[in-house]
Amino acid sequence: MTTEKVEIDTSTLNGKTDEEDIVTPWDVATKNETGIDYDKLIKRFGSSKIDGELLTRFEKITGQKPHHFLRRGIFFSHRDMNTILNFYEKGKPFYLYTGRGPSSDSLHLGHLVPFIFCKWLQEVFHVPLIIQLSDDEKAIWKNLKIEDAIKLSYNNAKDIIALGFKPENTFIFSNLEHVGNNPAFYQNIIRIQKSVTFNQVKGIFGFGDSDPIGKISFPAVQAAPAISGTFPFIFKDAKVHCLIPCAIDQDPYFRMMRDVAPRIGYPKPALLHSIFFPALQGSKTKMSSSDDKTAIFMTDTAKQIKNKINKHAFSGGQATIEEHRQLGGNCDIDISYQWLRFFLEDDEKLEQLRKGYTSGEILTGELKKELIEVLQPLVLAHQEAKNKLTDEIVKQYMIPRNLGFVTNIHRNTLSSEHK
Amino acid sequence: MTTEKVEIDTSTLNGKTDEEDIVTPWDVATKNETGIDYDKLIKRFGSSKIDGELLTRFEKITGQKPHHFLRRGIFFSHRDMNTILNFYEKGKPFYLYTGRGPSSDSLHLGHLVPFIFCKWLQEVFHVPLIIQLSDDEKAIWKNLKIEDAIKLSYNNAKDIIALGFKPENTFIFSNLEHVGNNPAFYQNIIRIQKSVTFNQVKGIFGFGDSDPIGKISFPAVQAAPAISGTFPFIFKDAKVHCLIPCAIDQDPYFRMMRDVAPRIGYPKPALLHSIFFPALQGSKTKMSSSDDKTAIFMTDTAKQIKNKINKHAFSGGQATIEEHRQLGGNCDIDISYQWLRFFLEDDEKLEQLRKGYTSGEILTGELKKELIEVLQPLVLAHQEAKNKLTDEIVKQYMIPRNLGFVTNIHRNTLSSEHK
Repeated sequence: MTTEKVEIDTSTLNGKTDEEDIVTPWDVATKNETGIDYDKLIKRFGSSKIDGELLTRFEKITGQKPHHFLRRGIFFSHRDMNTILNFYEKGKPFYLYTGRGPSSDSLHLGHLVPFIFCKWLQEVFHVPLIIQLSDDEKAIWKNLKIEDAIKLSYNNAKDIIALGFKPENTFIFSNLEHVGNNPAFYQNIIRIQKSVTFNQVKGIFGFGDSDPIGKISFPAVQAAPAISGTFPFIFKDAKVHCLIPCAIDQDPYFRMMRDVAPRIGYPKPALLHSIFFPALQGSKTKMSSSDDKTAIFMTDTAKQIKNKINKHAFSGGQATIEEHRQLGGNCDIDISYQWLRFFLEDDEKLEQLRKGYTSGEILTGELKKELIEVLQPLVLAHQEAKNKLTDEIVKQYMIPRNLGFVTNIHRNTLSSEHK
Repeated sequence: MTTEKVEIDTSTLNGKTDEEDIVTPWDVATKNETGIDYDKLIKRFGSSKIDGELLTRFEKITGQKPHHFLRRGIFFSHRDMNTILNFYEKGKPFYLYTGRGPSSDSLHLGHLVPFIFCKWLQEVFHVPLIIQLSDDEKAIWKNLKIEDAIKLSYNNAKDIIALGFKPENTFIFSNLEHVGNNPAFYQNIIRIQKSVTFNQVKGIFGFGDSDPIGKISFPAVQAAPAISGTFPFIFKDAKVHCLIPCAIDQDPYFRMMRDVAPRIGYPKPALLHSIFFPALQGSKTKMSSSDDKTAIFMTDTAKQIKNKINKHAFSGGQATIEEHRQLGGNCDIDISYQWLRFFLEDDEKLEQLRKGYTSGEILTGELKKELIEVLQPLVLAHQEAKNKLTDEIVKQYMIPRNLGFVTNIHRNTLSSEHK
């Protein structure tokens, strides 16, 4: 594998026409009212759709009903998920890697999506999870002071931990702290930076000559944790497969890394891609942490949640009650319904709401009420969990340490645990 | 100083005409038989000539006769050396920073020049010396394996230590090991990479679109040790002036850093530039560690030294003894004489040889004999010193540690020590 010569194919990545959706790690935009055309995106990025066959296989191998994010197409695309399942079936474990660019003091609901999913995957597969907080990226792109960027990492780490991750199998790190605390990390950054040209990152990420060199070199920093050699304190020298659940805008980093990994002796990372969590104002853009009224933050009060949804949630309903009863609502563009798809776990109830709203039986106000009732306790529970976390507890997750990883799961243990 | 907005001036750096000498960190070439035109280089780079006035001041402040590298114009150019002397005069110390890109198992004589000079400066000023081994650079440019590049660093460190540096005030590090072992280093790399664009490194270093991103981001790694904040274990949070002795081809890195440093709250590093140590075959190119017969290596035997010099040292003499007696030799192009300028410390003797060779009284063979007699014991002493160094001793120098640096030298101590 190490001698394989792979040219990074940038032909389909940045060469979009004017009518195509814009999807980069820094910019997501579409002209469609129903949001990004994800089927087109799968074609453009060259990934694979998550279909019924894959989910059936997933259930067969894990003995678990696929998460509603999978059943409802919220995680809709993948790369090499079958390879991961093949390996797992043979008793060979993998690890999960995801991350976030800490940009504000509090996370919003959209930020939770990859983490909620990772937690579930972790519970299904019993594998370590590695979470990168790319505060170096934020320092460069947002021109933040290094010290301030690191603070954001710690604040965001608390929100992430509040979702219930366990220190036994979760390692969270700030790049600005951890690169300088792990020689293997810097060495892998150099291995990657040796293998990728400016032309390639220009094609993949759209960088230009007037960009700071920090932007140009950053992709290697986000890519390096996708090979197990970056974490010798967890994996020793084992070459372990990596599975990366993330929103699809992060795919360019790992598309790049999938070309580099075999050249430096590692398996290509596999991916599970999610759609974007829409803003309260509608599906045309991604929710923004810099515009307070586009999102529900994990610090919002029950009253704020109620007011924001009632005031701003884009409605798929008709202009008058009479018309709505007659014509029905449009779930595809109604934000309350769309958000319920993410956070209402009960499939039957969701289907009732969909039918009722589409037929006109249920009004937008009633749908909003359902959403408020789902989100208020969810956010409150999060706040309570977060309040229990001291700085000391957060630090525990951020210490480089052995996570008890073993390279072979005993088949019997696996069967008995998972059935 | 931190609010100063400085644009990096690249106009004079890469915009050379065909007739100009090529001087970059990776390429040095000239068409002149007497070597690089250093006066032109000073103008092009915008540095200052080391003149009699500066040396008089140097002697007055330090109480030491300037090193023969200074007296003979081997270190011929500087940036802000007066600032360093001003500070030192006021009892404020600085630190020395130099480095090398480890490229072969053994150093050659030319490699010793900055280190011999640093050792002398260190003894005159009683200041810490920091030595970077840029094995990451070598891994990228020479496409070396990371592990092999680190090995080169350790081998080269042994050669450097053999010159007599003391662990009390000398810190030597491999980038590939140390960036991942010092969070402040990575954080300063990011601070620099935030502040410099691709256009700027293109102008300064001549990078192109097909270069790997590791090359594009590397200048920040060589520049970061020029601010004291990169070494909190030595300087705590003091903003200490830095003086960098190096061959002039390394100036581009620090020219870049002199623009960035004030923007991130640090003084501009000062520099002392040396001319290049010529190859045995003549002054047209720099000595190369990849061509065995162009250089005397520190591993060469007395016999090899004798044979190489007798066989390859470019002669400034005439075609026949008769012509030589009549017309005299040319010291400017005679390599034995040029090398004696570096390594024969006795000024009177050197002057005798110059006069004798110029007048034709001394033949090339006799000059070669003088050089052989200077170099054989020098190389042997180096080998003996190196043989005494165990891997354990080398490691001592490479441990990040407090070097007992204090930000104020007591004036009386200074005077009594130095007079």
